[in-house]
Amino acid sequence: MIQRTINSIGFIGLGIMGRHMAGHILAAGHKLNIYNRSRGNAESLIAKGAVWHDDPGAVAAASDVVITMVGYPADVEQIYLGAGGLIERAGRGSVLIDATTSSPSLAQRIAAAAAEKGVTALDAPVSGGEVGARDAKLAIMVGGDAETCEWVRPILALMGSNVARMGGPGAGQHTKMANQIAIASTMMGVSESLAYAREAGLDLDTVLKVIGTGAASSFLLNNLGPRMTKGDYAAGFYVHHFIKDLGIALDEAKRMGMNLPGLALARQLYDQLASQGHATDGTQALYHLYEGKSRA
Amino acid sequence: MIQRTINSIGFIGLGIMGRHMAGHILAAGHKLNIYNRSRGNAESLIAKGAVWHDDPGAVAAASDVVITMVGYPADVEQIYLGAGGLIERAGRGSVLIDATTSSPSLAQRIAAAAAEKGVTALDAPVSGGEVGARDAKLAIMVGGDAETCEWVRPILALMGSNVARMGGPGAGQHTKMANQIAIASTMMGVSESLAYAREAGLDLDTVLKVIGTGAASSFLLNNLGPRMTKGDYAAGFYVHHFIKDLGIALDEAKRMGMNLPGLALARQLYDQLASQGHATDGTQALYHLYEGKSRA
Repeated sequence: MIQRTINSIGFIGLGIMGRHMAGHILAAGHKLNIYNRSRGNAESLIAKGAVWHDDPGAVAAASDVVITMVGYPADVEQIYLGAGGLIERAGRGSVLIDATTSSPSLAQRIAAAAAEKGVTALDAPVSGGEVGARDAKLAIMVGGDAETCEWVRPILALMGSNVARMGGPGAGQHTKMANQIAIASTMMGVSESLAYAREAGLDLDTVLKVIGTGAASSFLLNNLGPRMTKGDYAAGFYVHHFIKDLGIALDEAKRMGMNLPGLALARQLYDQLASQGHATDGTQALYHLYEGKSRA
Repeated sequence: MIQRTINSIGFIGLGIMGRHMAGHILAAGHKLNIYNRSRGNAESLIAKGAVWHDDPGAVAAASDVVITMVGYPADVEQIYLGAGGLIERAGRGSVLIDATTSSPSLAQRIAAAAAEKGVTALDAPVSGGEVGARDAKLAIMVGGDAETCEWVRPILALMGSNVARMGGPGAGQHTKMANQIAIASTMMGVSESLAYAREAGLDLDTVLKVIGTGAASSFLLNNLGPRMTKGDYAAGFYVHHFIKDLGIALDEAKRMGMNLPGLALARQLYDQLASQGHATDGTQALYHLYEGKSRA
């Protein structure tokens, strides 16, 4: 059912991540069809030869493989399942790959709807942030048909250094949720640890050095800890996007009958942080919630 | 005030950690005075030349430097401040070093009481577990007089590869609390992440491999995650000792007027785990709390 030649690739969603990812595909010499909600983000790719289309469906109609990297599950649903959307316009045998961090259940619905049209949909969320996207070093967690995953692997490998098929439809998204769940409570632990150390009057650089090599060490402690203590909340990953991810994870956990109190607490704290005007800060701004006392 | 010759060293508390630590001091050729609640644990050291004493005070009377490694703050208080205890019996100019993870406030009280007798007390909790103790690779976080810390540094260096003075009395314990606070919520995150992944039907070894190199990675995910998924709850660090540590951290946080909801939640979950018969399992047994559904 899969067509064996890739003549052109589509890319929809040219935000911070998407622009880098699409750029790698174009740089590898592929014909690239693109669409973005605002055309401004597309200009640099158009200048390098990418072909602009006026809506997502048009990209799908012109491409053998389409990759999407948009914001929210509602956007994904609209683009894939909406009238004139990807599944309606994609050619038989083409492949649609959603790299957005989105709902596993939605990924399953999309895969099923695509299959009815002779189209294969994969979920392939990424981790590694802007640096990973820029350097083509993303981890890409793929859910969906095994044969299709192997077929598109060379394309995914243009954007990521670690492409792992995790199972059937939704398995990529589930893996990304597991990733975000670990991050959620770890970020709480790091924030509370450093806030405690500050209140206790300790030198925070020394604390980071001492606890950063043992059982308490983590990517977040070692990489975001120093930013927290400097009050550097510049976004690597937005608070409002993380809140979206935690909401998806909570919904899925609930659907599976699971109670994840750490995740639920982290979501509450991030909601509180966003309501204090930090929605577009980086996730390390969680530390700010614990700053009250020393600032008073 | 500090006497410049160390003729003999005392060690009190010969549990899993203490036995290894005392062994390194003895192996370095120091005269070693020892005491433990049960004499059984002391026999191997006695066979190698350590001198047994019948109570902690007698160890202090016979030693220039005494190291203690006992279980709970109540034990520390009794041994240091009780009648016939270390401070009462220690000679002027001697140094008492508590390596127990204990209360920062208690460490400050002990240091003050010691100073009144011309004795210097340091708090010097460790991290690195049994392996760190065995291999003399502990991190040792010291609080107390700077000059004294430098004087005993060669002795501490027999047991640890990273000896850091963190500040005045209590600063070592505060640093250890910061360490345990980071661990508490990180352990929740790791447990919930893997429990979610299991419920979602993912292959847990693959999940660990994929999320274990990115932003979700941590010592706990990478080292205890694989034990969780195998149901290996053998103790590296006991649940009941961790509950003690979290209780100290919560008390200190409260005293400083801080609200640490992640820490409070972790303490609740560990209490629940202990009440289910897991007090002498390793801390990674937290994963068990999330196993209900898949076992049902």
